[in-house]
Amino acid sequence: MFVLGIDPGLSRCGYGCVRSDGPRRHAVAAGVITTAIDESVPSRLATLRAELHKLVSELHPDVVVVERVFFQTNARTAMSVGQASGVALLTAVELGCEVVEYTSNEVKLAVTGFGGATKDQVQRMVARLLDLDAVPKPADAADALALALCHLSTAPWARPSWPTPSRLDTAKGRESQVARP
Amino acid sequence: MFVLGIDPGLSRCGYGCVRSDGPRRHAVAAGVITTAIDESVPSRLATLRAELHKLVSELHPDVVVVERVFFQTNARTAMSVGQASGVALLTAVELGCEVVEYTSNEVKLAVTGFGGATKDQVQRMVARLLDLDAVPKPADAADALALALCHLSTAPWARPSWPTPSRLDTAKGRESQVARP
Repeated sequence: MFVLGIDPGLSRCGYGCVRSDGPRRHAVAAGVITTAIDESVPSRLATLRAELHKLVSELHPDVVVVERVFFQTNARTAMSVGQASGVALLTAVELGCEVVEYTSNEVKLAVTGFGGATKDQVQRMVARLLDLDAVPKPADAADALALALCHLSTAPWARPSWPTPSRLDTAKGRESQVARP
Repeated sequence: MFVLGIDPGLSRCGYGCVRSDGPRRHAVAAGVITTAIDESVPSRLATLRAELHKLVSELHPDVVVVERVFFQTNARTAMSVGQASGVALLTAVELGCEVVEYTSNEVKLAVTGFGGATKDQVQRMVARLLDLDAVPKPADAADALALALCHLSTAPWARPSWPTPSRLDTAKGRESQVARP
């Protein structure tokens, strides 16, 4: 299964594509789409739409996973995140992809086994699960890969055989091998 | 000038198109686009996009005016309104329209002369300014017409010669002729 995660945002929209091969997961692509803050919101949404359209058309994912966004303390950001998520959901469904949404806590729980994990813990788990030498950068790309991994672990046919959180918490030796941002 | 107002929403998205002819304004079209609440959010966004695309393509407005949305008390609604506004802004700009956003208070101020006007006061002013026998229904359509009227009054080349709010406040005789919902 080929899953594209999208961490929606108007200034920075992260994406990360993961292919599952039995219990193994491979990061295929990860990055961030940015839009110029000195342009109008409609133009920025059009840029985001064009880039996402290109990305989904090129990658042909089976499933597109978008973070389900809720109220945030910064009302202005919450609205632009909502607008960006609308454009991401729309683009994915128009290109015929299955579209799934997960909350941030669902992603944390699926990736680290703990719904209250920090961003840093999630990102280091992403690097570990994808067998990467370092945490993917920028952070938005790592977050998007986490979304894709969340779906692969949550979808019942694809539960991966990664270490349990309790083992990870104590595996300090291995954890220190993960590159820090 | 031909202005299309859009009051964004996922369940109900109001639209209202006003043509200005010197100081007079004519309501050309008004209505609401609804999406089925039992469908997925991505499918509903795609439906909204398709309907808005059809509407803008048919009407060919010079300007599309979308309500600028901020945080609302219901976080779930705020996000779906944000998603719908993103789709509306995107559709308008992709179809080559000038796109303008106004806040609800800017619309109230422009249409009634008082930024703290009630929804009912705004809607009755819409009926009066457009010389309609009754307040347009549903309310979302009236709100969208108010957005279009706001732009026509705010754009400096098109300020209409409608009665001042102080005169309207005392013109009880005429106000009673406006049909109530």
